[in-house]
Amino acid sequence: MVTKNLIHTGHLIDSGLLTVILNLIIEEGADYEITRFDVGKTPDNESTMRILLKAGNDDLLESTAAKLTTYGVSALGESDAEWIKVIRDKAAPDGFYSTTNHKTEVFTDGRWRLVANQRMDAAVVKQHDGPACVKLRDLRSGDPVLVGASSVRVHPPEVGGSGSADSFAFMNNNISSERNATLSAEKIAAQMRELRTKGEKIVVVAGPVVVHTGGADALAALVRDGWIGGFLGGNAIAVHDLEYRLFGTSLGVDLATGRTTHEGHKNHMMAINAVYSHGSMNAMMKAGDLKEGLMYEVIRTGTPYCLAGSIRDDGPLPETEMDMIEAQKAYADIVEGSGMILMLSTMLHSIGTGNMTPSWVKTVCVDINPAVVTKLSDRGSAQAVGVVSDVGLFIRALARVLSAD
Amino acid sequence: MVTKNLIHTGHLIDSGLLTVILNLIIEEGADYEITRFDVGKTPDNESTMRILLKAGNDDLLESTAAKLTTYGVSALGESDAEWIKVIRDKAAPDGFYSTTNHKTEVFTDGRWRLVANQRMDAAVVKQHDGPACVKLRDLRSGDPVLVGASSVRVHPPEVGGSGSADSFAFMNNNISSERNATLSAEKIAAQMRELRTKGEKIVVVAGPVVVHTGGADALAALVRDGWIGGFLGGNAIAVHDLEYRLFGTSLGVDLATGRTTHEGHKNHMMAINAVYSHGSMNAMMKAGDLKEGLMYEVIRTGTPYCLAGSIRDDGPLPETEMDMIEAQKAYADIVEGSGMILMLSTMLHSIGTGNMTPSWVKTVCVDINPAVVTKLSDRGSAQAVGVVSDVGLFIRALARVLSAD
Amino acid sequence: MVTKNLIHTGHLIDSGLLTVILNLIIEEGADYEITRFDVGKTPDNESTMRILLKAGNDDLLESTAAKLTTYGVSALGESDAEWIKVIRDKAAPDGFYSTTNHKTEVFTDGRWRLVANQRMDAAVVKQHDGPACVKLRDLRSGDPVLVGASSVRVHPPEVGGSGSADSFAFMNNNISSERNATLSAEKIAAQMRELRTKGEKIVVVAGPVVVHTGGADALAALVRDGWIGGFLGGNAIAVHDLEYRLFGTSLGVDLATGRTTHEGHKNHMMAINAVYSHGSMNAMMKAGDLKEGLMYEVIRTGTPYCLAGSIRDDGPLPETEMDMIEAQKAYADIVEGSGMILMLSTMLHSIGTGNMTPSWVKTVCVDINPAVVTKLSDRGSAQAVGVVSDVGLFIRALARVLSAD
Amino acid sequence: MVTKNLIHTGHLIDSGLLTVILNLIIEEGADYEITRFDVGKTPDNESTMRILLKAGNDDLLESTAAKLTTYGVSALGESDAEWIKVIRDKAAPDGFYSTTNHKTEVFTDGRWRLVANQRMDAAVVKQHDGPACVKLRDLRSGDPVLVGASSVRVHPPEVGGSGSADSFAFMNNNISSERNATLSAEKIAAQMRELRTKGEKIVVVAGPVVVHTGGADALAALVRDGWIGGFLGGNAIAVHDLEYRLFGTSLGVDLATGRTTHEGHKNHMMAINAVYSHGSMNAMMKAGDLKEGLMYEVIRTGTPYCLAGSIRDDGPLPETEMDMIEAQKAYADIVEGSGMILMLSTMLHSIGTGNMTPSWVKTVCVDINPAVVTKLSDRGSAQAVGVVSDVGLFIRALARVLSAD
Repeated sequence: MVTKNLIHTGHLIDSGLLTVILNLIIEEGADYEITRFDVGKTPDNESTMRILLKAGNDDLLESTAAKLTTYGVSALGESDAEWIKVIRDKAAPDGFYSTTNHKTEVFTDGRWRLVANQRMDAAVVKQHDGPACVKLRDLRSGDPVLVGASSVRVHPPEVGGSGSADSFAFMNNNISSERNATLSAEKIAAQMRELRTKGEKIVVVAGPVVVHTGGADALAALVRDGWIGGFLGGNAIAVHDLEYRLFGTSLGVDLATGRTTHEGHKNHMMAINAVYSHGSMNAMMKAGDLKEGLMYEVIRTGTPYCLAGSIRDDGPLPETEMDMIEAQKAYADIVEGSGMILMLSTMLHSIGTGNMTPSWVKTVCVDINPAVVTKLSDRGSAQAVGVVSDVGLFIRALARVLSAD
Repeated sequence: MVTKNLIHTGHLIDSGLLTVILNLIIEEGADYEITRFDVGKTPDNESTMRILLKAGNDDLLESTAAKLTTYGVSALGESDAEWIKVIRDKAAPDGFYSTTNHKTEVFTDGRWRLVANQRMDAAVVKQHDGPACVKLRDLRSGDPVLVGASSVRVHPPEVGGSGSADSFAFMNNNISSERNATLSAEKIAAQMRELRTKGEKIVVVAGPVVVHTGGADALAALVRDGWIGGFLGGNAIAVHDLEYRLFGTSLGVDLATGRTTHEGHKNHMMAINAVYSHGSMNAMMKAGDLKEGLMYEVIRTGTPYCLAGSIRDDGPLPETEMDMIEAQKAYADIVEGSGMILMLSTMLHSIGTGNMTPSWVKTVCVDINPAVVTKLSDRGSAQAVGVVSDVGLFIRALARVLSAD
Repeated sequence: MVTKNLIHTGHLIDSGLLTVILNLIIEEGADYEITRFDVGKTPDNESTMRILLKAGNDDLLESTAAKLTTYGVSALGESDAEWIKVIRDKAAPDGFYSTTNHKTEVFTDGRWRLVANQRMDAAVVKQHDGPACVKLRDLRSGDPVLVGASSVRVHPPEVGGSGSADSFAFMNNNISSERNATLSAEKIAAQMRELRTKGEKIVVVAGPVVVHTGGADALAALVRDGWIGGFLGGNAIAVHDLEYRLFGTSLGVDLATGRTTHEGHKNHMMAINAVYSHGSMNAMMKAGDLKEGLMYEVIRTGTPYCLAGSIRDDGPLPETEMDMIEAQKAYADIVEGSGMILMLSTMLHSIGTGNMTPSWVKTVCVDINPAVVTKLSDRGSAQAVGVVSDVGLFIRALARVLSAD
Repeated sequence: MVTKNLIHTGHLIDSGLLTVILNLIIEEGADYEITRFDVGKTPDNESTMRILLKAGNDDLLESTAAKLTTYGVSALGESDAEWIKVIRDKAAPDGFYSTTNHKTEVFTDGRWRLVANQRMDAAVVKQHDGPACVKLRDLRSGDPVLVGASSVRVHPPEVGGSGSADSFAFMNNNISSERNATLSAEKIAAQMRELRTKGEKIVVVAGPVVVHTGGADALAALVRDGWIGGFLGGNAIAVHDLEYRLFGTSLGVDLATGRTTHEGHKNHMMAINAVYSHGSMNAMMKAGDLKEGLMYEVIRTGTPYCLAGSIRDDGPLPETEMDMIEAQKAYADIVEGSGMILMLSTMLHSIGTGNMTPSWVKTVCVDINPAVVTKLSDRGSAQAVGVVSDVGLFIRALARVLSAD
């Protein structure tokens, strides 16, 4: 039997973390004794708990302790981080610390230092200006990589904390198609106003369903009115927006009458060809042949954007980035510093965005399929909200609220 | 090899019926020869086709001919209908003709007579005033029941016929969540106006999701403004409407703030108990304790309604009919003579209603689950429209369009 | 400011209840001070917590305390229950205690007494042999009904408790179509064996999809082999099972070839008529005209069953109960004393069954629609398991495992 | 009023094409007269129809005629194709003919010539060895591109033709979760045997859900036993297969016990790092550190494969192609010459594959979400089959049938 002293300070109780922590220990096959528990007697007080973690062998002890770091449990007493150098490009040393999307500190050189560029599933490299998240593929021979979790302190956002003044997660626990979407639009609008006042960036990730369901004009209006600080999507939403501007159809369906036009699905190829004839959307705008719409507003306003390609793309448009390494970099640049991500009916691009977004950024996911909303909203934080609704009607409702300002 | 001469007259080609008819014959294991085909040369002309149906034996010949009647194919030359008397209550004679929901005629007493009370899955009984659909369970010993299909002529509504001036089935072929629901609301509103002008009744079948998603006030407004000539549902939509009026919640979710109130799901029991304390919703209204809302408007305006009970009901409310035989009768009375059925997010009651609705009545089905919409819209007619959308947002959009009148 | 002393003893921490309790207080607008907290230092120890509940007025204090009872919090020091007599049939007195589905005790006549017939959304009536759950509609003038929650002690099942030897809730937290259903079948089979050894009853609630997806023979085998102690469903599953036995089709689809037979959907009417000709399924079996299948095995083995009617039923079969009051009684009788409920692809009947099932009975819900599984499995207990899968393949896999015994 | 003579020869009636053709004309705003109609009197006879197409102006006349080519209608009397040279790379001339996925011929140099490399949404370029499909982005200045549809003859596969001996589309018309998946597996297995006998290639497109739901071993067995001639997927299925082989988990869920292991979702990063340590999966296999599984069998057997990257990828694995232009080429090479595509629970890669697959290749799409199956199966041909089922159970059932051979 080997043991280790651990400590946690924070809103242990009302956040539900206490339960998660103790159950994790048992499920891993380890055991515990609570050696001290200073309960926060009132809602405002933090609690402090010391645990004696017990395990049958060192491996289990360390692996369990490592897993507990995710929930804000750290070793009692600081020990300096261990850094092992990369021998082969891209390959992290055994036992490297794989990051969460939560705020993380490493005890190194005698003090706690914040990890930069926080994102999921990265290694931590000791750089000149301190520890930072680095994706495995970006590791280079010689990089000092953090090993083990004994010198790591993680600060998960508090889940549904009662003391929280932030009412963002108003329906977090109940993702359901049986909810009032008008109300959700109003609440999200209120948050958007607050973020705008604070100067925080709102990034949209949108799929082509936004166009098909008649939400493109409303989203274009949000871009035009300065609500959107970054636009992420794929080739399809741009193609379908162009098809709508040039032919009035979306996948061959006339958006003004709802009629399916025969062979109208070829309109999207005509739209692509129109861009090819100019060389780019940008050139097309300059030539005066694209005068309105979502992509028009994104480009005209200089809103940073990235259209990430995929295996299913037609064309692609000249502005679509078909190298996924480059696309992930561009996405990450746009996500950086954002205060909210609006994910509108695109699972692929939303998951991609979520991977590179810290857990303290608010995310809103709107989709008509409850399973998609559940998957995207499951970030273990009070900062994710899911709305099961018709995205076209929803974005119109959102724009109606915001334009009334 | 036995044969039989059949005939079809109508919009055979542009309705797609021709294909269905010929394929059916082959799939049944029979064969055909087209003995005459007068093609409608222009869209306005009907076509007439004579087929020599061939089969290996009499049974196959007759069963195939019987199946063809559904698609408007009848025997060439009329033969008087055969009627066999019921021996045992509820039990139809062998080979009884089981009805479709299409307009049907029987050749009897030397002439074609229209079948009354058209509905699916019934027997045809020769009554004093002519042939009529009778449910199996309502057959009584001595009733003369139609046997075989040789003297039957069915008139299916034309599917997507190009010659049709009626553009109701604007999106019939593509039930998808990737459609513009605002546009659908406008088109349905136009149809509702037209029906109102013609004095035809619009019946609503609604589930509790209408309340949860914030659509109850909009639906109540439609009732108040005289758009709705009949209201069908179950116990739940009434209970949830009452819960909303009395406590502001729906299944414990505060509809004004979206917050889940702890134990708020008990509010629906309190709402039921409030009605029990008065004896009925009607008495509650008279006592002044129910002053607004969906059920209030339904009862106040004298709109015919039926709340059909189910195995899952709490309560039930005194006005809920728990005997399903009686509930089916009440539903059928309300459906009779309607020009449109609006089916709002309740598969159970919508299927029940659909069974008793002739195929020439327009039906609109709105649900967030595409599988439900597909199931309910699949009536083989141009008179059914499916909308995959958020029912709360949709009914608000519909009411917004109609109240602008 | 008014206050009240409350107490909770149990596995507060690893069950997550602590968090729920404290958050509920804050959300209700009340406040708390933890006056004593004896933490269970090791996983086997229970914790005891005393809370001083504070509120701005008596109403809030009492309503908050009442809501806390659901989570096992009771008043410190027993006070005798208050019983108020019913004045009007069906109408409970104001402030009546509305039950949960958890094990409940009432302090009355100087001692804690277990409430009989535990079910959700009932009132508690003091009967000769002690307190019992009574549905509102069954309340009669003069019945003494429990008012308030001060004398109530509720024992919710422990959720995901680490100390639990019971591994039933193996996938409780992650209802997803991305799971291994073969594994789920094996685990559920293991539970079924254990229940059979202990002599506990397994009840099946099944919908017609079981027949359509080819699971009827496997389910019939489970009935024949004595696994099933009660069978609940509607009219449709029986009709479709009969259609399959008599014609080899299910809704007109030939189950041996997968072919849609034209007009084959009329076969279900022929099946109903065949039963009407005999007067009942039972008579049909005696006459030797029904010799195999699901309903055959259910009736032959004398397995208690109830087919609850609905607004959408054709027929109905003579054995179908069309009075919902009677059907709910029959369901409740069959559910009583069961150790497991298998809910197979029928939301309607499963919700009906769930309402009358105590929270300590294991429930398994299998459906291809994740939203249905989530809704049915959300019982706040470790005793509910959801499986998103193809019910036909699943029931075959289950029968394969169990028949290997 | 301008007119044009058109002709169609084939199974016009039982294929349903006649209806589609006539309705298209009306919907486009044009008109028709059927000038001659030689009806195929028996199922084996083809029909020939001549239509006088009428329109108000030349543009409408030509655009309508162009749309009709998709359905096999061509101009009466051949006219030599018009080819216009590309002026700017990637940009097709105005009015270029955009291809379908059906077999296509062009009348050029005085005779009908088959178009090579048939795929959707391409231009047709006159190359040295005849006309061929070329994607817009591959057009180069000077390429002669087909303009207009007057010299084009398209041969759509016959839909549900009664005369067809091929029963592949056994459930084409009814995509539903209410079907017998065991039966579908048997039918698909029969088709696979037939294709293998004929030496035709079967290509699999698979998503990570195959691994999560426990189908990876069954699919690996199909690869090992030589059923699969090409393997298409993304980064995720390979990562999850490796995670399963190295750690026994899939997204952190232990596939042997169904337990969620805490932080087990990090196992997929460990799996990626293990590959990085070797440099590639191939090197890992050579080093003896990867000895079984799906990717192991794919690589060991030399089955051509492509893992197409995406914006959401972790890693990616060294073998994953992150340049989408290259990935589309690799996919197209593998699809070429295949007789069947099995699409297993991945909408993204399946749509990508479908775009480059001619309509005469059989496709099978298996997914638990009916909307995905509908979308992927909607190819307007009898060669697409959709199965709504649990992919893990389904692939096991398929392997069980095939391994019994």
